[in-house]
Amino acid sequence: MKEITSMEKDFAKWYTDVVKKAKLMDYSGVRGCMILEPYGCAIWENIQKILDKKFKDLNHENVLMPLLISESLLQQEKDHIEGFAPEVAWVTHGGNEKLEERLCIRPTSEVLFCDYFSKKIKSWRDLPKLYNQWCNVVRWEKTTRPFLRTVEFYWQEGHTIHETEKEAREETEKMLNLYFDFLEKDLCIFTIKGQKTEKEKFAGAETTYTIEAMMHDGKILQSATSHYFGNSFAKAFGIKYRNKFNQESFPYQTSWGLTTRVIGGIIMTHGDNKGLVLPPSVAPIQIIIIPINLKNKEIIEKSLKIYDILNKNFRVKLDLTDQTPGWKFSEYEMKGVPLRLEFGPKDLKNNQCVLVKRNTSEKKICNLENLEENICLSLDELKFELYEESLKRTNDLTYLIEDNFEEILDKKYGFIKSSWCGNSKCEDLVKEKYGVTSRCIIKKNNANKCPLCGENSSYNIYWGKSY
Amino acid sequence: MKEITSMEKDFAKWYTDVVKKAKLMDYSGVRGCMILEPYGCAIWENIQKILDKKFKDLNHENVLMPLLISESLLQQEKDHIEGFAPEVAWVTHGGNEKLEERLCIRPTSEVLFCDYFSKKIKSWRDLPKLYNQWCNVVRWEKTTRPFLRTVEFYWQEGHTIHETEKEAREETEKMLNLYFDFLEKDLCIFTIKGQKTEKEKFAGAETTYTIEAMMHDGKILQSATSHYFGNSFAKAFGIKYRNKFNQESFPYQTSWGLTTRVIGGIIMTHGDNKGLVLPPSVAPIQIIIIPINLKNKEIIEKSLKIYDILNKNFRVKLDLTDQTPGWKFSEYEMKGVPLRLEFGPKDLKNNQCVLVKRNTSEKKICNLENLEENICLSLDELKFELYEESLKRTNDLTYLIEDNFEEILDKKYGFIKSSWCGNSKCEDLVKEKYGVTSRCIIKKNNANKCPLCGENSSYNIYWGKSY
Repeated sequence: MKEITSMEKDFAKWYTDVVKKAKLMDYSGVRGCMILEPYGCAIWENIQKILDKKFKDLNHENVLMPLLISESLLQQEKDHIEGFAPEVAWVTHGGNEKLEERLCIRPTSEVLFCDYFSKKIKSWRDLPKLYNQWCNVVRWEKTTRPFLRTVEFYWQEGHTIHETEKEAREETEKMLNLYFDFLEKDLCIFTIKGQKTEKEKFAGAETTYTIEAMMHDGKILQSATSHYFGNSFAKAFGIKYRNKFNQESFPYQTSWGLTTRVIGGIIMTHGDNKGLVLPPSVAPIQIIIIPINLKNKEIIEKSLKIYDILNKNFRVKLDLTDQTPGWKFSEYEMKGVPLRLEFGPKDLKNNQCVLVKRNTSEKKICNLENLEENICLSLDELKFELYEESLKRTNDLTYLIEDNFEEILDKKYGFIKSSWCGNSKCEDLVKEKYGVTSRCIIKKNNANKCPLCGENSSYNIYWGKSY
Repeated sequence: MKEITSMEKDFAKWYTDVVKKAKLMDYSGVRGCMILEPYGCAIWENIQKILDKKFKDLNHENVLMPLLISESLLQQEKDHIEGFAPEVAWVTHGGNEKLEERLCIRPTSEVLFCDYFSKKIKSWRDLPKLYNQWCNVVRWEKTTRPFLRTVEFYWQEGHTIHETEKEAREETEKMLNLYFDFLEKDLCIFTIKGQKTEKEKFAGAETTYTIEAMMHDGKILQSATSHYFGNSFAKAFGIKYRNKFNQESFPYQTSWGLTTRVIGGIIMTHGDNKGLVLPPSVAPIQIIIIPINLKNKEIIEKSLKIYDILNKNFRVKLDLTDQTPGWKFSEYEMKGVPLRLEFGPKDLKNNQCVLVKRNTSEKKICNLENLEENICLSLDELKFELYEESLKRTNDLTYLIEDNFEEILDKKYGFIKSSWCGNSKCEDLVKEKYGVTSRCIIKKNNANKCPLCGENSSYNIYWGKSY
């Protein structure tokens, strides 16, 4: 197996090498449209399973809205259409006939949900509706990169509608926190939680919240967003209901989403020069069993027994192919399998095995009597270490700028944290002059000045180079 | 709640009434594009869960191919494009720009898999590939009906590629049998298993196999298909591999699929004039608990306890809303919940409950000591009865025609079983003159004559009116 480019030499090349060598995805003949190969698809399915359960535990229900949206429906909310029109794919013909009205392939489904809500919601008894859908969307992006930006991608989009502003705001925050916890506990990725500026918020939203993760190279990946819409969509689409006092009212809406781009985030947060490193929660194979000396019948038999035991509670694979152990080691390191279990003649004799953690290559001799316990421990250790590394990197590469914004010129990558007046002029200036954009803002109480204009500031802001 | 049209009065109206009242789906603004509402979506998710496990147990891997296909790729296999070109939706613009080449929204994904295989398969070591994908497809149908024929629908499509004809043929048959078993054991639907005639087979297939189910009204629903492609797609797409003797060879392919239309099949097989009747395997709610007298605290407490016990092993719901028990009975009958558990003052006193089976309305008093056991028994009974009814109906409405095909004129619906010479002229004649089409054929050994032309026959054939 050929080596991959080292990340120090060329991070972008390292990234695409890992995607290719770990067989996560490939491009199809249509520009920017991806094929999720079995291994990449299995990671996405594990992500789906975990999130879907979390959503349902909070009483969300899944639905499936159509792929196609009529042009007139898309145009019903002004900010929304302005944001999305430049990047939608248009269907103009069905079979051999030209359509009377163009249809776009959904870039997101707000208008479809609004149209549906406008028909179904009549009374306060019909509220709230807590919906989610898992689907594909299409955005006609000019430049694409595996997982990070593709013309077609997969995601879940939650869409909820509530009687009161308070309820809707709580939902927006609850789902943002759900994503934050998911990234921390399941993907072992530390993120900064905040709000988007007016410039960076979602087309049509009143407020957009985001979690932002720092990658290995110090660039920032927007990892999930949660939007509060107020009742402006409801007004645009005529969604009205009779409240408990029999008055006609407009309900309040939210939407929130996480996409296949998070797979790119996993690669760029945990990966190393041997390839992918996967958090156990989403790893298609959590433990790879590699017998050393396939000619020894007892070793094979015992390996099969170990497989059977572990297969009850873990996603485990036993590799009995005729490749060398060394080749197998590299292969499963490339695929990011969290734990390797080696079993050779010495282990057979001593009723033990060797456990090797993917992230540190640390070896541990483990008595087979306590195998499952030890595996749980090792996986927990690995999760903890992955998260700690992500947290440490973020802290190490976060630079506080108090008054002289020029200091930023020394810091090519990472988060720049400063105060901000809230004025988009300062935001534009930073983008133009320093080449970083606002990743998120957090309301604050202290009395610092904006280092750009010297005005009073009401926010802390994180700047960075984004993916 | 308003009544639904009785199926005897107007079967088509009954069907759409059930779809609507049970809140399974609704149409969106784009003609023929459906919204799967929470209850319908939950049924589809249960179907997916069961089938996905069956596929994976047979070593199939999930992948996700793109939504869009370039026109030139679609045209690479002649029979295939001829079959599908009239019914695809064409994307001609991305954002504000006209595309250089039109892209169609996949009506099915054979060409995408072939393109992928042509790049990835080099040696016999790369075979077989056993892939499946869950996705949406679009076919520009003129007339649509909920679930049965929609412009966009959901399905799984399996695509496999093998070294030998034998292996590929075995796969085709194995997957057909998997569908047959799934319909029998999980959906409680009896189907006739057979082959499609040349006229009715899938565009590009060498042989198409099918399972055909008889609905309540005697019309026939094609419920799943499995195709053997030989190596004609491999030849058209240049998929070649080096075999064990280092010779260049063309591999053999299959594909097989089941769609959301099977939900229509469930409705029309098991439904009755009170609404939907769902087989327990796919019912979103398997047991509905309805306390009688909500003012009695003890009844509520005990109902909650029953819920907690059952919730461990069943999909169960406890309805504590302030509607009357009568209203709730109708509501969950409409939604086809297999089992109703009533719990009232008398039950509280006697430590019992009342179980009511949806299909027969049969009531059973059940001691709470043996609750779970009794519920399993009732659900098993219901499954058995649903299947027996489907089988009986098929048998009752299957008419054997030996020599005088005119007899068919008395039999408006159901299966007409006859011998057939294998000539498409006789097939065409039957369609034109008698208004039924060939649903499937089965090779046979007896020496009967074709009742249409009097020639020797080599098939048994099932004719019917199809959905």
